[in-house]
Amino acid sequence: MSTPITAKMVNDLRTQTGAGLLDCKNALIESNGNIEEAITILRKKGAASAAKKATRATLQGLIESYIHVGGKVGVLIEVNCETDFVARNEEFRVFVRDLCLQIAAASPLYVSRDQVPEAQLNTEREIATAQVQGKPPAAVQKIVEGKIEKYYSTVCLVDQPFVKLQEKTVKEVLTEKIAKIGENIQIRRFVRFQLGS
Amino acid sequence: MSTPITAKMVNDLRTQTGAGLLDCKNALIESNGNIEEAITILRKKGAASAAKKATRATLQGLIESYIHVGGKVGVLIEVNCETDFVARNEEFRVFVRDLCLQIAAASPLYVSRDQVPEAQLNTEREIATAQVQGKPPAAVQKIVEGKIEKYYSTVCLVDQPFVKLQEKTVKEVLTEKIAKIGENIQIRRFVRFQLGS
Repeated sequence: MSTPITAKMVNDLRTQTGAGLLDCKNALIESNGNIEEAITILRKKGAASAAKKATRATLQGLIESYIHVGGKVGVLIEVNCETDFVARNEEFRVFVRDLCLQIAAASPLYVSRDQVPEAQLNTEREIATAQVQGKPPAAVQKIVEGKIEKYYSTVCLVDQPFVKLQEKTVKEVLTEKIAKIGENIQIRRFVRFQLGS
Repeated sequence: MSTPITAKMVNDLRTQTGAGLLDCKNALIESNGNIEEAITILRKKGAASAAKKATRATLQGLIESYIHVGGKVGVLIEVNCETDFVARNEEFRVFVRDLCLQIAAASPLYVSRDQVPEAQLNTEREIATAQVQGKPPAAVQKIVEGKIEKYYSTVCLVDQPFVKLQEKTVKEVLTEKIAKIGENIQIRRFVRFQLGS
Protein backbone atom coordinates (compact mmCIF):
# COMPACT_ATOMS: atom_id res chain seq x y z
CA MET A 1 0.00 0.00 0.00
CA SER A 2 1.45 3.35 -0.94
CA THR A 3 1.48 6.41 1.32
CA PRO A 4 -1.11 9.02 0.33
CA ILE A 5 0.56 12.22 -0.90
CA THR A 6 -1.06 15.19 0.81
CA ALA A 7 -1.08 18.79 -0.38
CA LYS A 8 0.93 19.69 2.72
CA MET A 9 3.71 17.26 1.78
CA VAL A 10 3.87 18.70 -1.73
CA ASN A 11 3.97 22.20 -0.29
CA ASP A 12 6.73 21.36 2.21
CA LEU A 13 8.81 19.86 -0.57
CA ARG A 14 8.28 22.96 -2.73
CA THR A 15 9.36 25.23 0.13
CA GLN A 16 12.49 23.15 0.68
CA THR A 17 13.53 22.71 -2.93
CA GLY A 18 11.96 25.51 -4.92
CA ALA A 19 10.94 22.91 -7.53
CA GLY A 20 7.64 23.06 -9.45
CA LEU A 21 4.32 21.71 -8.13
CA LEU A 22 4.07 18.78 -10.53
CA ASP A 23 7.76 17.82 -10.14
CA CYS A 24 7.29 17.74 -6.36
CA LYS A 25 4.15 15.64 -6.58
CA ASN A 26 5.76 13.12 -8.92
CA ALA A 27 8.91 12.89 -6.83
CA LEU A 28 6.81 12.19 -3.73
CA ILE A 29 4.87 9.47 -5.55
CA GLU A 30 8.16 7.93 -6.71
CA SER A 31 9.66 8.09 -3.20
CA ASN A 32 6.44 6.77 -1.66
CA GLY A 33 6.07 9.88 0.48
CA ASN A 34 9.65 10.02 1.78
CA ILE A 35 10.68 13.70 1.71
CA GLU A 36 14.45 13.15 1.88
CA GLU A 37 14.31 10.67 -1.00
CA ALA A 38 12.05 12.98 -2.97
CA ILE A 39 14.65 15.75 -2.61
CA THR A 40 17.31 13.38 -3.96
CA ILE A 41 15.05 12.48 -6.91
CA LEU A 42 14.42 16.15 -7.71
CA ARG A 43 18.13 16.92 -7.51
CA LYS A 44 18.96 14.06 -9.87
CA LYS A 45 16.50 15.57 -12.35
CA GLY A 46 18.12 18.96 -11.82
CA ALA A 47 14.80 20.32 -10.56
CA ALA A 48 16.22 21.28 -7.17
CA SER A 49 19.47 23.05 -6.36
CA ALA A 50 22.30 21.42 -4.41
CA ALA A 51 21.83 23.31 -1.19
CA LYS A 52 18.39 23.08 0.31
CA LYS A 53 16.73 26.44 0.25
CA ALA A 54 16.45 27.77 3.75
CA THR A 55 13.03 26.81 5.01
CA ARG A 56 10.95 29.76 6.02
CA ALA A 57 11.37 30.34 9.73
CA THR A 58 7.93 29.77 11.20
CA LEU A 59 9.15 30.40 14.73
CA GLN A 60 9.96 33.72 16.29
CA GLY A 61 12.56 34.40 18.90
CA LEU A 62 16.13 35.41 19.39
CA ILE A 63 19.61 34.06 18.80
CA GLU A 64 22.02 35.53 21.30
CA SER A 65 25.65 34.99 22.22
CA TYR A 66 28.01 35.70 25.05
CA ILE A 67 31.79 35.69 25.03
CA HIS A 68 33.47 35.65 28.40
CA VAL A 69 36.25 38.20 28.93
CA GLY A 70 39.42 37.02 27.18
CA GLY A 71 37.57 34.91 24.62
CA LYS A 72 38.16 31.56 26.34
CA VAL A 73 34.46 30.66 26.80
CA GLY A 74 31.59 31.36 24.44
CA VAL A 75 27.88 30.59 24.32
CA LEU A 76 25.32 30.61 21.51
CA ILE A 77 21.62 30.15 22.28
CA GLU A 78 18.27 30.08 20.48
CA VAL A 79 15.15 30.95 22.45
CA ASN A 80 11.78 30.81 20.72
CA CYS A 81 8.59 32.74 21.36
CA GLU A 82 5.36 33.14 19.42
CA THR A 83 5.53 36.63 17.95
CA ASP A 84 8.21 38.98 16.69
CA PHE A 85 6.70 41.55 19.05
CA VAL A 86 7.84 39.52 22.06
CA ALA A 87 11.21 38.76 20.42
CA ARG A 88 11.84 42.54 20.52
CA ASN A 89 10.52 42.90 24.09
CA GLU A 90 13.19 44.15 26.50
CA GLU A 91 12.31 41.71 29.30
CA PHE A 92 12.51 38.77 26.89
CA ARG A 93 15.89 39.99 25.65
CA VAL A 94 17.26 40.38 29.16
CA PHE A 95 16.10 36.85 30.02
CA VAL A 96 17.86 35.45 26.94
CA ARG A 97 21.07 37.29 27.90
CA ASP A 98 20.78 35.91 31.45
CA LEU A 99 20.48 32.39 30.01
CA CYS A 100 23.75 32.96 28.12
CA LEU A 101 25.49 33.97 31.33
CA GLN A 102 23.95 30.97 33.08
CA ILE A 103 25.36 28.58 30.47
CA ALA A 104 28.80 30.24 30.53
CA ALA A 105 28.94 30.02 34.33
CA ALA A 106 27.23 26.71 35.06
CA SER A 107 28.21 24.67 31.97
CA PRO A 108 25.01 22.64 31.43
CA LEU A 109 25.20 19.85 28.84
CA TYR A 110 21.50 19.61 27.90
CA VAL A 111 18.46 21.88 27.82
CA SER A 112 16.25 19.45 29.74
CA ARG A 113 16.27 15.95 31.21
CA ASP A 114 14.56 14.31 28.23
CA GLN A 115 17.76 15.06 26.27
CA VAL A 116 20.06 13.08 28.58
CA PRO A 117 21.05 9.91 26.67
CA GLU A 118 19.70 6.69 28.18
CA ALA A 119 23.21 5.15 28.34
CA GLN A 120 24.53 8.15 30.27
CA LEU A 121 21.66 7.88 32.73
CA ASN A 122 22.35 4.16 33.24
CA THR A 123 26.02 4.88 33.99
CA GLU A 124 24.99 7.54 36.54
CA ARG A 125 22.53 5.13 38.16
CA GLU A 126 25.19 2.42 38.31
CA ILE A 127 27.73 4.77 39.90
CA ALA A 128 25.16 6.07 42.40
CA THR A 129 24.19 2.50 43.37
CA ALA A 130 27.86 1.49 43.87
CA GLN A 131 28.40 4.49 46.14
CA VAL A 132 25.57 3.38 48.48
CA GLN A 133 26.30 0.19 50.36
CA GLY A 134 25.05 -1.70 53.41
CA LYS A 135 21.62 -0.02 53.46
CA PRO A 136 18.15 -1.59 53.01
CA PRO A 137 17.05 -1.74 49.33
CA ALA A 138 14.25 0.82 49.83
CA ALA A 139 16.73 3.32 51.29
CA VAL A 140 19.22 2.59 48.50
CA GLN A 141 16.59 3.30 45.88
CA LYS A 142 15.67 6.58 47.52
CA ILE A 143 19.29 7.70 47.80
CA VAL A 144 19.99 6.72 44.19
CA GLU A 145 16.96 8.69 42.99
CA GLY A 146 18.21 11.66 45.00
CA LYS A 147 21.60 11.42 43.34
CA ILE A 148 20.00 11.25 39.91
CA GLU A 149 17.97 14.40 40.70
CA LYS A 150 21.25 16.03 41.74
CA TYR A 151 22.79 14.91 38.45
CA TYR A 152 19.91 16.49 36.49
CA SER A 153 20.32 19.75 38.38
CA THR A 154 24.01 19.76 37.40
CA VAL A 155 23.78 18.96 33.69
CA CYS A 156 20.31 20.18 32.61
CA LEU A 157 19.94 23.91 32.04
CA VAL A 158 16.31 24.16 33.18
CA ASP A 159 17.00 22.15 36.36
CA GLN A 160 19.97 24.28 37.40
CA PRO A 161 19.67 26.93 40.10
CA PHE A 162 19.35 30.28 38.30
CA VAL A 163 22.74 31.99 38.79
CA LYS A 164 21.20 35.42 39.28
CA LEU A 165 18.75 34.14 41.90
CA GLN A 166 19.98 30.89 43.45
CA GLU A 167 16.72 30.01 45.24
CA LYS A 168 14.91 29.45 41.96
CA THR A 169 15.63 27.01 39.15
CA VAL A 170 15.90 28.18 35.55
CA LYS A 171 12.60 26.37 34.89
CA GLU A 172 10.84 28.38 37.60
CA VAL A 173 12.14 31.66 36.21
CA LEU A 174 11.11 30.55 32.71
CA THR A 175 7.58 29.77 33.93
CA GLU A 176 7.35 33.21 35.53
CA LYS A 177 8.47 34.90 32.31
CA ILE A 178 5.87 32.93 30.32
CA ALA A 179 3.15 34.05 32.76
CA LYS A 180 4.32 37.67 32.76
CA ILE A 181 4.98 38.05 29.03
CA GLY A 182 1.90 36.01 28.14
CA GLU A 183 3.46 33.91 25.41
CA ASN A 184 5.03 30.49 25.29
CA ILE A 185 8.83 30.68 25.49
CA GLN A 186 11.03 27.75 24.61
CA ILE A 187 14.77 27.31 25.06
CA ARG A 188 15.39 25.51 21.79
CA ARG A 189 19.15 24.84 21.81
CA PHE A 190 22.50 26.12 22.94
CA VAL A 191 26.19 25.39 22.57
CA ARG A 192 29.04 26.28 24.89
CA PHE A 193 32.62 26.37 23.62
CA GLN A 194 35.52 26.35 26.04
CA LEU A 195 38.94 26.93 24.55
CA GLY A 196 40.78 23.66 23.93
CA SER A 197 38.27 21.40 25.66
CA MET B 1 47.53 -9.67 27.52
CA SER B 2 46.88 -6.50 29.49
CA THR B 3 47.57 -3.00 28.26
CA PRO B 4 50.67 -1.42 29.86
CA ILE B 5 49.72 1.54 32.07
CA THR B 6 52.00 4.45 31.23
CA ALA B 7 52.80 7.44 33.44
CA LYS B 8 51.11 9.67 30.85
CA MET B 9 47.84 7.72 31.19
CA VAL B 10 47.94 8.04 34.96
CA ASN B 11 48.67 11.75 34.64
CA ASP B 12 45.84 12.34 32.16
CA LEU B 13 43.42 10.56 34.46
CA ARG B 14 44.61 12.68 37.42
CA THR B 15 44.11 15.88 35.43
CA GLN B 16 40.61 14.81 34.44
CA THR B 17 39.42 13.52 37.82
CA GLY B 18 41.55 15.20 40.47
CA ALA B 19 41.92 11.76 42.12
CA GLY B 20 45.15 10.59 43.82
CA LEU B 21 48.06 8.99 41.98
CA LEU B 22 47.63 5.49 43.39
CA ASP B 23 43.82 5.54 42.92
CA CYS B 24 44.33 6.51 39.28
CA LYS B 25 46.92 3.79 38.68
CA ASN B 26 44.74 1.09 40.27
CA ALA B 27 41.66 2.22 38.36
CA LEU B 28 43.61 2.05 35.09
CA ILE B 29 44.85 -1.46 35.92
CA GLU B 30 41.27 -2.52 36.72
CA SER B 31 39.89 -0.98 33.50
CA ASN B 32 42.77 -2.43 31.49
CA GLY B 33 43.86 1.01 30.37
CA ASN B 34 40.42 2.32 29.33
CA ILE B 35 40.25 5.94 30.54
CA GLU B 36 36.46 6.31 30.41
CA GLU B 37 35.98 3.11 32.42
CA ALA B 38 38.67 4.17 34.89
CA ILE B 39 36.76 7.42 35.49
CA THR B 40 33.61 5.39 36.21
CA ILE B 41 35.57 3.17 38.64
CA LEU B 42 36.99 6.20 40.46
CA ARG B 43 33.55 7.79 40.67
CA LYS B 44 32.06 4.60 42.12
CA LYS B 45 34.73 4.72 44.82
CA GLY B 46 33.92 8.36 45.42
CA ALA B 47 37.48 9.28 44.46
CA ALA B 48 36.37 11.50 41.59
CA SER B 49 33.63 14.11 41.53
CA ALA B 50 30.55 13.81 39.33
CA ALA B 51 31.50 16.44 36.82
CA LYS B 52 34.85 15.93 35.15
CA LYS B 53 37.19 18.67 36.18
CA ALA B 54 37.80 20.94 33.27
CA THR B 55 40.94 19.73 31.59
CA ARG B 56 43.64 22.34 31.44
CA ALA B 57 43.41 24.16 28.16
CA THR B 58 46.65 23.34 26.41
CA LEU B 59 45.63 25.23 23.30
CA GLN B 60 45.54 28.95 22.86
CA GLY B 61 43.20 30.89 20.65
CA LEU B 62 39.93 32.71 20.59
CA ILE B 63 36.24 31.98 20.87
CA GLU B 64 34.26 34.59 19.00
CA SER B 65 30.62 35.09 18.08
CA TYR B 66 28.55 37.08 15.66
CA ILE B 67 24.85 37.82 15.79
CA HIS B 68 23.28 39.14 12.62
CA VAL B 69 21.11 42.25 12.98
CA GLY B 70 17.73 41.28 14.40
CA GLY B 71 19.02 38.16 16.14
CA LYS B 72 17.83 35.68 13.52
CA VAL B 73 21.26 34.22 12.69
CA GLY B 74 24.14 33.58 15.07
CA VAL B 75 27.61 32.06 14.84
CA LEU B 76 30.03 30.73 17.44
CA ILE B 77 33.59 29.79 16.46
CA GLU B 78 36.79 28.50 18.04
CA VAL B 79 40.08 29.26 16.32
CA ASN B 80 43.29 27.94 17.83
CA CYS B 81 46.82 29.27 17.68
CA GLU B 82 50.01 28.39 19.56
CA THR B 83 50.50 31.26 22.00
CA ASP B 84 48.33 33.62 24.00
CA PHE B 85 50.40 36.42 22.47
CA VAL B 86 48.96 35.66 19.02
CA ALA B 87 45.47 35.13 20.46
CA ARG B 88 45.59 38.82 21.50
CA ASN B 89 47.08 39.95 18.17
CA GLU B 90 44.79 42.37 16.31
CA GLU B 91 45.27 40.76 12.90
CA PHE B 92 44.39 37.34 14.32
CA ARG B 93 41.28 38.80 15.98
CA VAL B 94 40.13 40.49 12.80
CA PHE B 95 40.58 37.21 10.90
CA VAL B 96 38.48 35.34 13.47
CA ARG B 97 35.75 37.99 13.19
CA ASP B 98 35.87 37.71 9.40
CA LEU B 99 35.40 33.94 9.71
CA CYS B 100 32.25 34.56 11.78
CA LEU B 101 30.86 36.83 9.07
CA GLN B 102 31.80 34.21 6.46
CA ILE B 103 29.86 31.51 8.30
CA ALA B 104 26.84 33.76 8.83
CA ALA B 105 26.76 34.73 5.15
CA ALA B 106 27.79 31.51 3.41
CA SER B 107 26.33 28.86 5.79
CA PRO B 108 29.03 26.18 5.59
CA LEU B 109 28.20 22.85 7.23
CA TYR B 110 31.72 21.60 7.95
CA VAL B 111 35.16 23.06 8.60
CA SER B 112 36.91 20.92 5.97
CA ARG B 113 36.21 18.11 3.52
CA ASP B 114 37.45 15.34 5.83
CA GLN B 115 34.41 16.10 8.00
CA VAL B 116 31.82 15.42 5.28
CA PRO B 117 30.15 12.08 6.19
CA GLU B 118 30.87 9.26 3.74
CA ALA B 119 27.13 8.60 3.23
CA GLN B 120 26.52 12.24 2.32
CA LEU B 121 29.37 12.13 -0.18
CA ASN B 122 27.94 8.96 -1.75
CA THR B 123 24.55 10.61 -2.17
CA GLU B 124 26.18 13.63 -3.82
CA ARG B 125 28.15 11.36 -6.15
CA GLU B 126 25.00 9.42 -7.05
CA ILE B 127 23.08 12.60 -7.79
CA ALA B 128 25.93 14.03 -9.85
CA THR B 129 26.18 10.80 -11.87
CA ALA B 130 22.44 10.76 -12.54
CA GLN B 131 22.60 14.33 -13.80
CA VAL B 132 25.21 13.41 -16.43
CA GLN B 133 23.92 11.15 -19.18
CA GLY B 134 24.86 10.05 -22.68
CA LYS B 135 28.55 10.92 -22.31
CA PRO B 136 31.62 8.60 -22.46
CA PRO B 137 32.53 7.16 -19.02
CA ALA B 138 35.81 9.14 -18.81
CA ALA B 139 33.94 12.39 -19.39
CA VAL B 140 31.25 11.38 -16.89
CA GLN B 141 33.87 10.72 -14.24
CA LYS B 142 35.50 14.08 -14.85
CA ILE B 143 32.19 15.96 -14.68
CA VAL B 144 31.17 14.11 -11.51
CA GLU B 145 34.48 14.97 -9.84
CA GLY B 146 33.94 18.60 -10.85
CA LYS B 147 30.50 18.57 -9.26
CA ILE B 148 31.92 17.06 -6.05
CA GLU B 149 34.54 19.83 -5.94
CA LYS B 150 31.72 22.32 -6.35
CA TYR B 151 29.86 20.62 -3.48
CA TYR B 152 32.94 20.92 -1.23
CA SER B 153 33.25 24.61 -2.05
CA THR B 154 29.62 25.06 -1.01
CA VAL B 155 29.55 23.16 2.30
CA CYS B 156 33.16 23.28 3.58
CA LEU B 157 34.25 26.51 5.22
CA VAL B 158 37.90 26.35 4.09
CA ASP B 159 36.91 25.56 0.49
CA GLN B 160 34.46 28.46 0.22
CA PRO B 161 35.39 31.67 -1.57
CA PHE B 162 36.32 34.19 1.13
CA VAL B 163 33.37 36.62 1.28
CA LYS B 164 35.58 39.66 1.78
CA LEU B 165 37.81 38.75 -1.17
CA GLN B 166 35.99 36.45 -3.58
CA GLU B 167 39.06 35.50 -5.67
CA LYS B 168 40.61 33.61 -2.74
CA THR B 169 39.35 30.64 -0.78
CA VAL B 170 39.20 30.72 3.02
CA LYS B 171 42.04 28.17 3.00
CA GLU B 172 44.24 30.49 0.95
CA VAL B 173 43.60 33.41 3.30
CA LEU B 174 44.26 31.11 6.28
CA THR B 175 47.60 30.02 4.78
CA GLU B 176 48.56 33.67 4.26
CA LYS B 177 47.72 34.50 7.88
CA ILE B 178 49.81 31.56 9.11
CA ALA B 179 52.77 32.77 7.03
CA LYS B 180 52.36 36.39 8.15
CA ILE B 181 51.68 35.77 11.84
CA GLY B 182 54.26 32.96 11.98
CA GLU B 183 52.21 30.51 14.02
CA ASN B 184 49.98 27.61 13.15
CA ILE B 185 46.30 28.63 13.14
CA GLN B 186 43.53 26.07 13.18
CA ILE B 187 39.80 26.56 12.74
CA ARG B 188 38.71 24.04 15.34
CA ARG B 189 34.91 24.17 15.23
CA PHE B 190 31.92 26.39 14.64
CA VAL B 191 28.15 26.35 14.90
CA ARG B 192 25.61 28.46 13.05
CA PHE B 193 22.08 28.89 14.39
CA GLN B 194 19.32 30.18 12.16
CA LEU B 195 16.05 30.99 13.87
CA GLY B 196 13.56 28.13 13.54
CA SER B 197 15.61 26.01 11.17
